[in-house]
Amino acid sequence: MRDIVVFSGSAHRALAEAICSELGTSLSPSETVRFSNDCLQSQLLANCRQRDVYIVQPLVPPTQDHLMELLLMVDAARGASAASITVVVPHYAYARSDKKDASRISIGGKLVADMMATAGVNRVVTMTLHAPQVHGFFSMPLDHLTAIGELADHYRDSDLSNAVVVSPDFGNAKTASQFARLLGLPVAAGSKQRKADDKVVIDAIVGDVAGKRAIVLDDEIATGGSIVELVSMLERQGVTEISVACTHGLFTGKAVERLRDHPGIAEVVTTDTVPPPADWPALRVRSVAPLFARAIARIHAGESVSSLFDGVDPTHAPPQPKLPL
Amino acid sequence: MRDIVVFSGSAHRALAEAICSELGTSLSPSETVRFSNDCLQSQLLANCRQRDVYIVQPLVPPTQDHLMELLLMVDAARGASAASITVVVPHYAYARSDKKDASRISIGGKLVADMMATAGVNRVVTMTLHAPQVHGFFSMPLDHLTAIGELADHYRDSDLSNAVVVSPDFGNAKTASQFARLLGLPVAAGSKQRKADDKVVIDAIVGDVAGKRAIVLDDEIATGGSIVELVSMLERQGVTEISVACTHGLFTGKAVERLRDHPGIAEVVTTDTVPPPADWPALRVRSVAPLFARAIARIHAGESVSSLFDGVDPTHAPPQPKLPL
Amino acid sequence: MRDIVVFSGSAHRALAEAICSELGTSLSPSETVRFSNDCLQSQLLANCRQRDVYIVQPLVPPTQDHLMELLLMVDAARGASAASITVVVPHYAYARSDKKDASRISIGGKLVADMMATAGVNRVVTMTLHAPQVHGFFSMPLDHLTAIGELADHYRDSDLSNAVVVSPDFGNAKTASQFARLLGLPVAAGSKQRKADDKVVIDAIVGDVAGKRAIVLDDEIATGGSIVELVSMLERQGVTEISVACTHGLFTGKAVERLRDHPGIAEVVTTDTVPPPADWPALRVRSVAPLFARAIARIHAGESVSSLFDGVDPTHAPPQPKLPL
Amino acid sequence: MRDIVVFSGSAHRALAEAICSELGTSLSPSETVRFSNDCLQSQLLANCRQRDVYIVQPLVPPTQDHLMELLLMVDAARGASAASITVVVPHYAYARSDKKDASRISIGGKLVADMMATAGVNRVVTMTLHAPQVHGFFSMPLDHLTAIGELADHYRDSDLSNAVVVSPDFGNAKTASQFARLLGLPVAAGSKQRKADDKVVIDAIVGDVAGKRAIVLDDEIATGGSIVELVSMLERQGVTEISVACTHGLFTGKAVERLRDHPGIAEVVTTDTVPPPADWPALRVRSVAPLFARAIARIHAGESVSSLFDGVDPTHAPPQPKLPL
Amino acid sequence: MRDIVVFSGSAHRALAEAICSELGTSLSPSETVRFSNDCLQSQLLANCRQRDVYIVQPLVPPTQDHLMELLLMVDAARGASAASITVVVPHYAYARSDKKDASRISIGGKLVADMMATAGVNRVVTMTLHAPQVHGFFSMPLDHLTAIGELADHYRDSDLSNAVVVSPDFGNAKTASQFARLLGLPVAAGSKQRKADDKVVIDAIVGDVAGKRAIVLDDEIATGGSIVELVSMLERQGVTEISVACTHGLFTGKAVERLRDHPGIAEVVTTDTVPPPADWPALRVRSVAPLFARAIARIHAGESVSSLFDGVDPTHAPPQPKLPL
Amino acid sequence: MRDIVVFSGSAHRALAEAICSELGTSLSPSETVRFSNDCLQSQLLANCRQRDVYIVQPLVPPTQDHLMELLLMVDAARGASAASITVVVPHYAYARSDKKDASRISIGGKLVADMMATAGVNRVVTMTLHAPQVHGFFSMPLDHLTAIGELADHYRDSDLSNAVVVSPDFGNAKTASQFARLLGLPVAAGSKQRKADDKVVIDAIVGDVAGKRAIVLDDEIATGGSIVELVSMLERQGVTEISVACTHGLFTGKAVERLRDHPGIAEVVTTDTVPPPADWPALRVRSVAPLFARAIARIHAGESVSSLFDGVDPTHAPPQPKLPL
Repeated sequence: MRDIVVFSGSAHRALAEAICSELGTSLSPSETVRFSNDCLQSQLLANCRQRDVYIVQPLVPPTQDHLMELLLMVDAARGASAASITVVVPHYAYARSDKKDASRISIGGKLVADMMATAGVNRVVTMTLHAPQVHGFFSMPLDHLTAIGELADHYRDSDLSNAVVVSPDFGNAKTASQFARLLGLPVAAGSKQRKADDKVVIDAIVGDVAGKRAIVLDDEIATGGSIVELVSMLERQGVTEISVACTHGLFTGKAVERLRDHPGIAEVVTTDTVPPPADWPALRVRSVAPLFARAIARIHAGESVSSLFDGVDPTHAPPQPKLPL
Repeated sequence: MRDIVVFSGSAHRALAEAICSELGTSLSPSETVRFSNDCLQSQLLANCRQRDVYIVQPLVPPTQDHLMELLLMVDAARGASAASITVVVPHYAYARSDKKDASRISIGGKLVADMMATAGVNRVVTMTLHAPQVHGFFSMPLDHLTAIGELADHYRDSDLSNAVVVSPDFGNAKTASQFARLLGLPVAAGSKQRKADDKVVIDAIVGDVAGKRAIVLDDEIATGGSIVELVSMLERQGVTEISVACTHGLFTGKAVERLRDHPGIAEVVTTDTVPPPADWPALRVRSVAPLFARAIARIHAGESVSSLFDGVDPTHAPPQPKLPL
Repeated sequence: MRDIVVFSGSAHRALAEAICSELGTSLSPSETVRFSNDCLQSQLLANCRQRDVYIVQPLVPPTQDHLMELLLMVDAARGASAASITVVVPHYAYARSDKKDASRISIGGKLVADMMATAGVNRVVTMTLHAPQVHGFFSMPLDHLTAIGELADHYRDSDLSNAVVVSPDFGNAKTASQFARLLGLPVAAGSKQRKADDKVVIDAIVGDVAGKRAIVLDDEIATGGSIVELVSMLERQGVTEISVACTHGLFTGKAVERLRDHPGIAEVVTTDTVPPPADWPALRVRSVAPLFARAIARIHAGESVSSLFDGVDPTHAPPQPKLPL
Repeated sequence: MRDIVVFSGSAHRALAEAICSELGTSLSPSETVRFSNDCLQSQLLANCRQRDVYIVQPLVPPTQDHLMELLLMVDAARGASAASITVVVPHYAYARSDKKDASRISIGGKLVADMMATAGVNRVVTMTLHAPQVHGFFSMPLDHLTAIGELADHYRDSDLSNAVVVSPDFGNAKTASQFARLLGLPVAAGSKQRKADDKVVIDAIVGDVAGKRAIVLDDEIATGGSIVELVSMLERQGVTEISVACTHGLFTGKAVERLRDHPGIAEVVTTDTVPPPADWPALRVRSVAPLFARAIARIHAGESVSSLFDGVDPTHAPPQPKLPL
Repeated sequence: MRDIVVFSGSAHRALAEAICSELGTSLSPSETVRFSNDCLQSQLLANCRQRDVYIVQPLVPPTQDHLMELLLMVDAARGASAASITVVVPHYAYARSDKKDASRISIGGKLVADMMATAGVNRVVTMTLHAPQVHGFFSMPLDHLTAIGELADHYRDSDLSNAVVVSPDFGNAKTASQFARLLGLPVAAGSKQRKADDKVVIDAIVGDVAGKRAIVLDDEIATGGSIVELVSMLERQGVTEISVACTHGLFTGKAVERLRDHPGIAEVVTTDTVPPPADWPALRVRSVAPLFARAIARIHAGESVSSLFDGVDPTHAPPQPKLPL
Repeated sequence: MRDIVVFSGSAHRALAEAICSELGTSLSPSETVRFSNDCLQSQLLANCRQRDVYIVQPLVPPTQDHLMELLLMVDAARGASAASITVVVPHYAYARSDKKDASRISIGGKLVADMMATAGVNRVVTMTLHAPQVHGFFSMPLDHLTAIGELADHYRDSDLSNAVVVSPDFGNAKTASQFARLLGLPVAAGSKQRKADDKVVIDAIVGDVAGKRAIVLDDEIATGGSIVELVSMLERQGVTEISVACTHGLFTGKAVERLRDHPGIAEVVTTDTVPPPADWPALRVRSVAPLFARAIARIHAGESVSSLFDGVDPTHAPPQPKLPL
């Protein structure tokens, strides 16, 4: 079997080190310099020739710098004759730009996928894309991991009686349903409406939540504005206790103070696909490093990645004997 | 301005003729032969050199034959030195294969988009893709039209008091919301659950429907099984009258008898993106030929297509001064 | 050496199983479903990651469905991280669409080759292309096998005195010459003429056939119309006995009754590149499964495939010391 | 209409000038220098920006230099922002390398076609490819002209009684049949056999030639060896007079003395797709410059090129109402 | 002629407006939003369909954001069916990453050029690339303008007696020679040596500078460190007065205070390819907006761009009758 | 590890054999025939399937024939299912065509690099490109070797007191500086000026050379004209002894007599990247076969190639801990 070499960009070195630790290897050194004209240059400081190279880099702020660094590292690995180049992008932030919902706008999720192909990426490993269709934007194989098993484990020991899983909107409702099924719970969803050009509000909760404890599940939390609005709506509808879970806990802008100190939110659970905020010790962070490490090990050994999610998510489960419409 | 030449595959010649009629031109002749080994060969019987060629072909059964015929016509047009080749695919059936929801399955929606690029397609005009992200599967410009304005026009003259728009599932709920807003109505949605490997059931209606008249809106109706199940559920929840509307009325298998004769369904409204069934005179078919003709005319004249949908759908509306998250 | 995985589309499972049996492996399971809108979806039910995947599928009627199934299986294998994807297409039916013999027609043989590249095919193994130039339509490596050694073996035990090999037209005459040389026989050929736009007739036999026994060799027999016409012409010219051999025995339309019951045809010999007709027990079918199995084994072991045909066909023989014009 | 600019490589400037003269324009200047390390550099000395650029260059000896010069001129035109680049290659010599007739050999006809695409060629205009399938090697539109109408005009005024058209081999027999039909004559063909690795001989004439006058038609004559051999065979079979016609009269090696002075050859007719030999005044050269000029004019005007060959060659004729197998 | 539409990214709107003003048109509106996860999205607020779109954006800090904005605008224009997309990048900062001068480093100049092609750029207009070979990194046509005529104009009115043009290093010496020839002056150059891994010093001046007035010419000034070092060296060698000229005046870090207040530097001259620093009123800025406007106008009209530089720079001059090695 | 197969084109078989000898393997047979129409065809006479194929061919005169032969061999290897194809091009002659230094000229260095990618080249190994930026013209990995260590070894045993390294022009000055540093010597450079359109002269030597012994270092010597001119200039400036060294000793035209018999040139040192002239016994040829063999061995074993040049050239040295601007 060919050697494996893992590099990390500067976006989330702690995660890359945790993955390497799980893999029983160590992170290979690399360096990115910023020239005085603000251009970046990356150098890989370990032999890549005929190696399977993995580069870990979630697309977190400063997103453009991290994206460019990732592409430059890929370019360097290709020029250094890597046998294959896999980018491990735990959070693919541009997945939110996945459709043309106004005239003459860019579809960043597709453009960045194409840029990766141009730079020389042979495979992508990512987690919880904003929409599953984004998978189809990539021309190279992509392994799409899910954290809902990891997040469900967090709740398994809790008292789940009288609880309901709530999706903030219809878009995430399918994932919320899968998550609810793992925990044996019902599901509800917020209905969003665009009030004005620059204002979207949650105007209703579809599903029964009154008198229940809510587990709000979202894929990504950025400023936390939608979550706070949803929490208010849930409280008005008689929800008794609210826990918030998400895969990608970006917590940008005022998110930490909004959520950390919110009286209606009992706890917030997230993963480490992105670096957790420093000033929020109570945040419950479940590490996905073991999942990524197992996926990389299976990719390298030529074993099935989908069997990692057996029993967790039918989307990722091993092939079923029959697949009806 | 360069000349325009419109051809039709064999899938829906009536629509192509209606579009040409709206455009004030006539359909150019073409011919597809089937050899004794079942291979197809297409020939365009009008000069294409330096012309803007449009080929009209929805992907309806026999879908593979119609797809291959379309690709062969594109190949012939390219070899005949067309200046540009636009495929007008009113129903892009493969859009339903838009994600990897099981291991090692094909993503047909992406593959067919790539095949179109390979054959030489320069632009796609289509209507109501199953998911808006499918837009990003195409590497060439795509004009994505919507029929909800046309369908809404059907209901504008009706008595809409006490009515509610119902989406059969969460996936279509956003479009249902836009449709509801055009009519000033509330919205509800069915919640689907996978009972077994080969069985998906609607187990709940999220939103208030009791005592109301329901307008069920779906993007595509094939066998009609889901619709019939939804109708039963709505009846159990006290809906008083049900109208069913969809963009793509395929009505395959037993759909016609299921829906045409269903006592709980007051009427079914659809468009002519696909050929309407011959044995259903009461089916209300709204023609989208004028919409396609106007889109083609604007494309040809270099005018904005999005302004066709001003006031209908914010997704297709002209650019807004501000576009917040 | 990497593992080998063989899948079969639904066109000719018996051949795929025979190949696997020769290889000492077993066919891996897969499944193709047809949705109610007639779109297909393929799923591979065995791990492909880092495996060399072979997919067996001749392009036989319904040709478009079989072609699309093949492409979807390739797409699934690529998405499942196969190390390499080889399609084994014993009969590449679209090879007949190999030139522009009228204005503005498609060249299907080139288009389908390009579609294979788009889907992710890395290598093609095929047999007896309609014209050897079709090889050049493929951008990936192609192993072009020949069945003439297998067909010649059939005649080796017969009485070949006073026999002549007859090609139905000039296009196949070179192969007929090679075949004749293997058996030490002279060669003759039919001369076709286009009588009207839709009528081609054999108007002469070039070469001496009077009083001889004829072995008619063609690459593909579909409706059998040309063969029957050739047989009449041969009979008129005093041929005493006629045997018909072909690589691809499609026998579509009325071919079986035309040929099976023809008083002038002593026997028909073919191979199993396509499924033999059920209602023709006297048809002599020579299996090419061993040839394909040996080719696959050599490809997998990195051995020369051309040496399989040493002494059979100079086109496929190992490199010669000198290759003049 | 955009401006047209015609350049000529150094292979056949006289033809380029004749084409320009027919077009009523003048050849634009260009220059190719040979550096002391034998590398070439081409410069176009007329503005190409937004122009339709045509570059005339048959692939005649020194073939590699002329090919490279052509590609460099294309590269220069692309870099100079030409609107489109059409290469006019009256003789595409690499078409003879069109199949893999031995193991591990190059298919030069495909490689050179791909190199043209890489350099930036948008369209090819050529004449009488060695095999019609070579058309499919090109990924860009190709206009395939034929000289048989021009060659037939030469014989129309002659006494054609008791004449027969003879193809030197089966490969060219279809074209010979079309040519014979234009003149209302029968057709015959030589049968070639490979005697040893480096020796191919004509061992028979299929068709009736005894006591007739033969018009030998070939696509290309290089050394003339095959023609001389065929002439001997025809003489032995009682042919009374022999005229030789070909599209591409290369006449390399000893061809001129072999054919010019051959007592059995009454005359040799060719075209000017390649520069005619200086030392053969009796050679009958029919200019195809008018044909190329008319093709270019039609391409530029967006008119059908195929109608140029109406009545000459069904392959190039305008689309027919029906196209059977 | 097709309509022209000019957009500006956010890097240097003043230059884009100046170019539009010269062109007699006005800048079309566009908008780039930054989402809370730091991803960008661009929207073009004017119809692009069948228009020739120009997007002005030098790559200045924050370079990655400006690069990504540019690519997203290109993606939006392509999706909006622009007839052609030209990016006007007055300063292509990544040109400095033009070679592999250490192991396993990225070549950013090539990667960014490839990313532009991926996004859909059809043409590039730029000025003074760090090395002329960078032109070859781009697969699309590129118009490479020079500012040395503009900079020379600044000095034409000065007293140039006893002056010498000095290039800071050998790399820029060819351009310095051309500049010197425009002014009729001799040339000298600094010789750089790498002292340690992170230290490069100017250790000699090759050419005669003692007692002369020096005009230092560089392509780009970033921190100004090299210039200050060169100035010290020149002063030690007896230069009496120093003027500094450069095309791309980035003036990052401490450049402004270093150069503005340097007693040995009489004046600094630059262009507006990048936004000039606000706090340096004495800086002499020559606008290149007229040059870019004239280049765009000529591109649009299909006229020669090279003739813009007739007499200025032989590299950009119209084709010469002879081009020796 | 996969097998390695080395072929040689006809440009420099001696070098290929020397490389194989160093590698402990033997050259595999191949053959290129020239057809009577001057087209080439290459055949590889050893099994390539799943092998790593290396093809050795410097681009020396007749350059176009050697280039085409190389591309045909690559095409044959690709068609023969090689696992990877590395071209070893010790002298990449087209690197001199690396920029657009006049209007509407080709950039041959980029075009040939693209043609290699089109033919199927996976990796390039070359030596001393005319400009380091040419590396970026190649889309595949390229290993760029240097001969300056080998050339420096030649001088290490000589008396280097009072010596100076002289670069004929600024373009090569950086390499000359590295070479000088290896020998602990100072550096000087010629300054070229274009006198007329077809005349470039060396008009000055920048740097101190009077009374010194000069080692002139150039990358390529073709006609030797520039060297002779430089020698005259050096003699006028009081240089006492001149030795000339170059990597690529083409010695075309009158170079041998010019340099061999020049009284001012004490010796000429070169390498065998190209075949040395037969009529110059005193020429000192240092073989680079060991360097290429070691590079190939390391590529094949997946070891670092850059470490070959540790201490020789910082550009090729192993990664440094820090890489400032």
